[in-house]
Order: sequence, then structure tokens, then C-alpha cells
Amino acid sequence: MKTLSQIISEYNAFKSKGLKLDMSRGKPAPDQLDLSERLLTAVAANGDCFSADGTDCRNYGLLDGLPEVKKLFADMLGVNPSNIIVGGNSSLNLMFDVLSRAMTHGVADGCQPWSKYEKISFLCPVPGYDRHFAITEFFGIHMINIPMDANGPDMDLIEKLVSEDETIKGCWCVPKYSNPTGITYSDEVVERFAKLKPKAKDFRVFWDNAYVVHDLTDKPDTLKEIFAEAKKYGNEDMFYEFASTSKITYAGAGVACIAASESNIKRILGWLKFQTIGFDKMNQLRHAKVFKSIDDLKAQMRAHADLIRPKFEVVYKVFGELLSEYKDVSWTKPNGGYFISLQLPKNTAKRVVQLAKEAGLVVTPAGAPFPYGIDPDDSVIRIAPTYPSVEELETAARLLCCCVAYAICEQSQN
Amino acid sequence: MKTLSQIISEYNAFKSKGLKLDMSRGKPAPDQLDLSERLLTAVAANGDCFSADGTDCRNYGLLDGLPEVKKLFADMLGVNPSNIIVGGNSSLNLMFDVLSRAMTHGVADGCQPWSKYEKISFLCPVPGYDRHFAITEFFGIHMINIPMDANGPDMDLIEKLVSEDETIKGCWCVPKYSNPTGITYSDEVVERFAKLKPKAKDFRVFWDNAYVVHDLTDKPDTLKEIFAEAKKYGNEDMFYEFASTSKITYAGAGVACIAASESNIKRILGWLKFQTIGFDKMNQLRHAKVFKSIDDLKAQMRAHADLIRPKFEVVYKVFGELLSEYKDVSWTKPNGGYFISLQLPKNTAKRVVQLAKEAGLVVTPAGAPFPYGIDPDDSVIRIAPTYPSVEELETAARLLCCCVAYAICEQSQN
Repeated sequence: MKTLSQIISEYNAFKSKGLKLDMSRGKPAPDQLDLSERLLTAVAANGDCFSADGTDCRNYGLLDGLPEVKKLFADMLGVNPSNIIVGGNSSLNLMFDVLSRAMTHGVADGCQPWSKYEKISFLCPVPGYDRHFAITEFFGIHMINIPMDANGPDMDLIEKLVSEDETIKGCWCVPKYSNPTGITYSDEVVERFAKLKPKAKDFRVFWDNAYVVHDLTDKPDTLKEIFAEAKKYGNEDMFYEFASTSKITYAGAGVACIAASESNIKRILGWLKFQTIGFDKMNQLRHAKVFKSIDDLKAQMRAHADLIRPKFEVVYKVFGELLSEYKDVSWTKPNGGYFISLQLPKNTAKRVVQLAKEAGLVVTPAGAPFPYGIDPDDSVIRIAPTYPSVEELETAARLLCCCVAYAICEQSQN
Repeated sequence: MKTLSQIISEYNAFKSKGLKLDMSRGKPAPDQLDLSERLLTAVAANGDCFSADGTDCRNYGLLDGLPEVKKLFADMLGVNPSNIIVGGNSSLNLMFDVLSRAMTHGVADGCQPWSKYEKISFLCPVPGYDRHFAITEFFGIHMINIPMDANGPDMDLIEKLVSEDETIKGCWCVPKYSNPTGITYSDEVVERFAKLKPKAKDFRVFWDNAYVVHDLTDKPDTLKEIFAEAKKYGNEDMFYEFASTSKITYAGAGVACIAASESNIKRILGWLKFQTIGFDKMNQLRHAKVFKSIDDLKAQMRAHADLIRPKFEVVYKVFGELLSEYKDVSWTKPNGGYFISLQLPKNTAKRVVQLAKEAGLVVTPAGAPFPYGIDPDDSVIRIAPTYPSVEELETAARLLCCCVAYAICEQSQN
């Protein structure tokens, strides 16, 4: 073990380099974006602008999306095309819209708008996706932390809470390669979600399958398909599933979708028709032309994996080298997704982020993956390794390890 | 004047032809869409994907839009780029979102969400845009008809109502080439809007400038810029302006914007950041590359006008030939926009639409341009001449005139 003074001297050496590093951005690197160049000219002349069914994608119409893109998403998610609505460029926007409509109009016939209840609550498996929690807070919804382990959220707790507490109207889930831990819900966890018996009949699970095809290794996780399971218990209306091509093609200009039960699809289209005449079908068409089948899309994902796997690996290498000796320090090694979760001793995460910042390394604020930005243990840091180069990441990881050592050593002396 | 039996014999002659005509679709014709072919390859390689400020448009970010597209919309609307937020492909969606946020969060600090009021009302100049009224009804907002004349809405009535009735929270406007009458608000009407003194401090005007550059003739209407005027009275926060390129480039895949005061822009971005990470910047970039300045855009609009002017003219020609003899029948001859409004004697519009339908001509349902789909006089028909060919339009207009004659003659005999 290094002494604090050794660590401080190392830290100051980093600091003196005037580094400008960033491990906070969960977004694709330019070389990943370059993989989609053929999207740019997939529709290059007036005669190309028609979908398989003859729709002129330049004009108004087709609220639920191009049939070929519905098929693509259906194959991605393991559902029927009739259970898909294709949206604009942002699945987050679709989640926001579904939640917004739940607030103003309720989620089913005979259910009142959520905004009419005195109090409503959401279950938030933690650590989780900060933007989910931000939306929930924006609508004034009370958030309840649910611990996660390697199999997913604590289902004993979820079952207990939803069966007892009628104010609980929803639960956020990132069931595969969860943001930020990278874990995938076990079959048992999915089954227990599928057969939940919530007290609130207007309880809904927001199943954000953002990383459904985002495998990194040759041992990808598998996720049980939720709707088939939910149907067994008559619970198919309880789930809204979301996905997008944001991390398949372009983060800012992909195509997003909702998957839902027949009855929910009908209801969603029932309000969507007031919201818009239709989403951008030209971008849908580009995607359909580039990905003629799910196999084309999977090939693209293998190319992504080849680019980002070395980035995850360099972080593991440095962490293994420099953090193994520390008790209560561990990190996830996900088989896919966009993040590594670094688990630290209690009450050190904020300090590590601060130290990193002062030495020129931006790390996601400690607490960010928790409702209200509060990590009760102050012990989790989300690492986003995809955007920087391997070289930058190695430096950044080394600096981060130095900050971890610094904070732990400092804490032990207080 | 023809006798009813002459008219019926003409009508049956049309009917026997098995026509399939449609004057209901307010959307561009394929040849108009073909005008934008260069948009398809405006961004054709990885190296093209960057905006003038270096932003990689393929990736996340830039919530308020590309600077060059903000500039383009600013020049279109006569405002500053800092007063623009560039959205997705649909200005209707932006209007829906602004209204939705007003319902859930209110329109300004210190104002309660509109959903918390027992009753709220909107002023609806009529005839107007059916989708505006549909959104309003969807959110349970009471709608009040405001008559329009050649100068715009009845401002005496609007001033009186907003100064007396605190439940009135909004007013819809299509100030230039209004849908469906094609009239443009006079300077006096714009000025009177700008200096309204509503009782409700959270009253907002939805200024849908959908046809701002959509001139048809060499004598285009001019519309006074609303924000400059509103500023004189400290009323700049009272207006949300909307526009899009839906009828400039692609109806289904254009780019939309909101223009608003500095304080409203800040507030809108304040909720938009929860809704999305950003709109599709790639499509924004395509538009920026094709329209390097407002002059490029105006040239495109002249090409549109050349294509659709003959369509408006053939309708005028047929109406002039066949309807001039009828008392209480008139039609607008707008200098721009997408519609002709046909004014009929009371209690005949529905009958005309029904007769047309039975003979194979789809016309927008009578009542559609009114709140709740109810035209109190049953006397207005919206004609959309852009989509059919000139030949189809001539036949459709002749059939429509026959239906008008039929309904009027029939009525006179009852």
C-alpha cells in the first residue's frame, strides 16, 4: 500500500500535466459513427423515397411508422411488428411522452390522469439512468430507490411495495446491460416482473431496452422477452418497452420505437394522432435500406463491439493493476452496454470525482445514477469508456485510480 | 339558372364515371417534393457531418439546434437567432408539447399548471386549422369561436373577452395565409394582438406562422412581425411562434422551430432538456447545406409557387364559370398558403360534402375547420388544391360546383 504522501505526489504529477480528459460521456466515438456512412446515401434520389408498400416517405402520414422498420425493431425485441410504433430520433422523448400522457390522461380507460392523484411514486432500481430519474422528478413523482444485484432489482422488495402501496404507479428498468452497472436481469427477475400483482391497476413498467443488441463479448447476456412472459399472467398491458438505433447508427439522428400490447398500441396511437401527423419517415427509410434484416444490424453491432471492446479492456487492465489491493473496491465487467460501474468504499465517491476534476478528468458526478442525484452511500461512480481513445482512457483510468487511492487513504486517516 | 332535374342529370353523369378524386389533402404534390432532391445528398460522406461550428451532427447534443438553421428560421420570421429553438420534423408536435407543458407545469414562474384550473378556454378564430382545435379539445380546453374577416379575427371581441374572462388562457392564430381562408392579418390586427391586456397573466397566443414564405402570386401579402410589436407593450412573453419547412422541403421530414422571447426560450429549454437529448441535427444540417441563406429558400418557394399556382387558378376559373350566379356563394383567392375557402349559403355545406362523396370526390368534412367539428352555419368548405393534378382538379371543381348547385337548388325547393 502506498502512503498518502506517495499518492499525493503521484496525483500532483498528473495535475501538472494539464490533462483534459473525460470519462463521463455515454456516447459513441467518431469511429463508431463512421460505421454508418452508408446511411447518408441510402436514399439518394427522388425515386428512392418510397417504402416497400409504396408510401412516399417525403410526404405526410403513416403515424405508426414504416412497415419494414416496425419489422426490424420487432425482430430486435422479439415481438410482433403490430406491437411496434416507430418514433422520431429519441427513445427518451418517447418515454417522456408516454409519462406526460399518463400525467394528463391516465394510462387506460377508466383510470384517472396521474396528475389527479395527491401523490404518486415510481420505483427506481439503483444505480440507474439519470435521465429516467430526471423525467420522473420533473413531473413531481416521488422516487423510491430499489437496490440491484447481479441478477437485477431486488424483486422481494418490489413485489412487497407494489402489492401494498397504491401510490406506486411505475418502475424504471434497463433490463439488459443496465445503465450503469451493465448487468442483465436474470430469467427469474423477468418472470417476477411479468407476474407482479400491483395494488394500483394503473401501474406501468418502463422497460427501456436501450442496449438490447449492444453485446461486447463473445459471451453475450440473454434477456427473456418480457411480453411473452407477461401474457401468461394477463399482464401485457403493464409494460411499455423502448429501444432505438441511437447507439447502432447515430446517437443524435437514429430511429426510436415503443413496443407495447395491442391495447396499449391502440391507446398510444389514440393520443399520438393529436401530437403529430407523423414522425420522420425519410430517416426510417434510410435505416430500412441499410438494415434489410436483423442480421445486417447484428453485423453492425459486431463492428461497434470491435471498436469499443479494447476501451473497456484497458479500463479493466488498469483497475486490476491499481485497485485490486483495495478492500470494498470493485467494478463491473459487463458483456455489453456502454458503462462500467465502479464501486468504492462508502463516502468516497464525491471526493474521487472532485479530485479527478481538479486534475483535469471529468467523471460523471457521484450521485448522478440515483434519484435526486443522491447516492445514499456515496460509493458509486459511472465510467463511460466509449468516447475517448484507448490511449486517453488508459491515462484517465490511471488518474482515476490515483484519485481513488487518495480518497481512501485520506479517509482512513480521518 | 338550371333546374334541379337538369342538375341531377349532370350530377348522375359525374356519378356514372366512377371518379376517385380528392380535394381534402393539404399536402404537397410529388412534383413539389421532387424540388428538394438535393437535400438527399447534401450530407453524403462522414466528413460532411459537421456544422459550421464543428458540431458532429451524428452525435448527441445541441438541444436548441444548429446555429445555421437558427439563423435561417430567424431570417424567415424576422427575429433574432437567439429567439429560435430548432425542433424535429413537426411544428404541430412543438405546439402540442408547449401546450402539454402549459397543462402540466404552467407557462411562467409563479403561474400554476393550466390543468389545475377548474376551467380554461381558448379563443379559436374560425374557420381555422382543425388540428389546432383537436389538440385543444384533447386537453379538455373549452373553445370559443371568433369570427374572421378579410383582416383577421374580430379584435373587438378578442379584446373584450380576454380583458373580462380569466379562464381564457390562449388563442390560436395562423396569421399569414390563414388555414383555410388564406387571409393575412392586417397590420392593425397584429398591433391589437401585440397590445392585448388579458385578465389572465398566463394568457398565451399560439402564432402558427405555417405559411410565412408560402407566396403564390407576385403580389404577396406582408405580415407585421409580432415580437417587435409586442415588445413595445412589454408583451413579448405572450407569444409562441411556430414554423417549419414541411411545405418547403418535405412534409414528413422537414425541420420545425419555435420562436419566442428570451425568457420563454429559457423556460422552454428548461423542460426540453428533460424531454430529449436533442432533435435530429443531421436533418437540420441537410437543410442548412441546401439553404445557405434565406434567398436560397425563397428561390425554392418560387419554384413551389410555379407548380401550385395553376392549381389554384383552375379552381378559380371553374368556380367563376359555374358559381358566380349564386347568391351567398363566394370563395377566397389567397396570395399564398395551401387552401381556398368556399363560402356557401347556410345549411348547405354538409349536403355538398355528402353529394361529392357519393359521386367519388372526397372533400374535407364540413365543420372540420371549426372547434368540435361544428360549423354553426354549416356554410364553409375547405378546398385543398395542391395535391391533385390540374386535370383532376378541373374535374373535381366542376363536380363540386354541380354539388353546390344541387344543394342550393334542393334547399330552395324545401
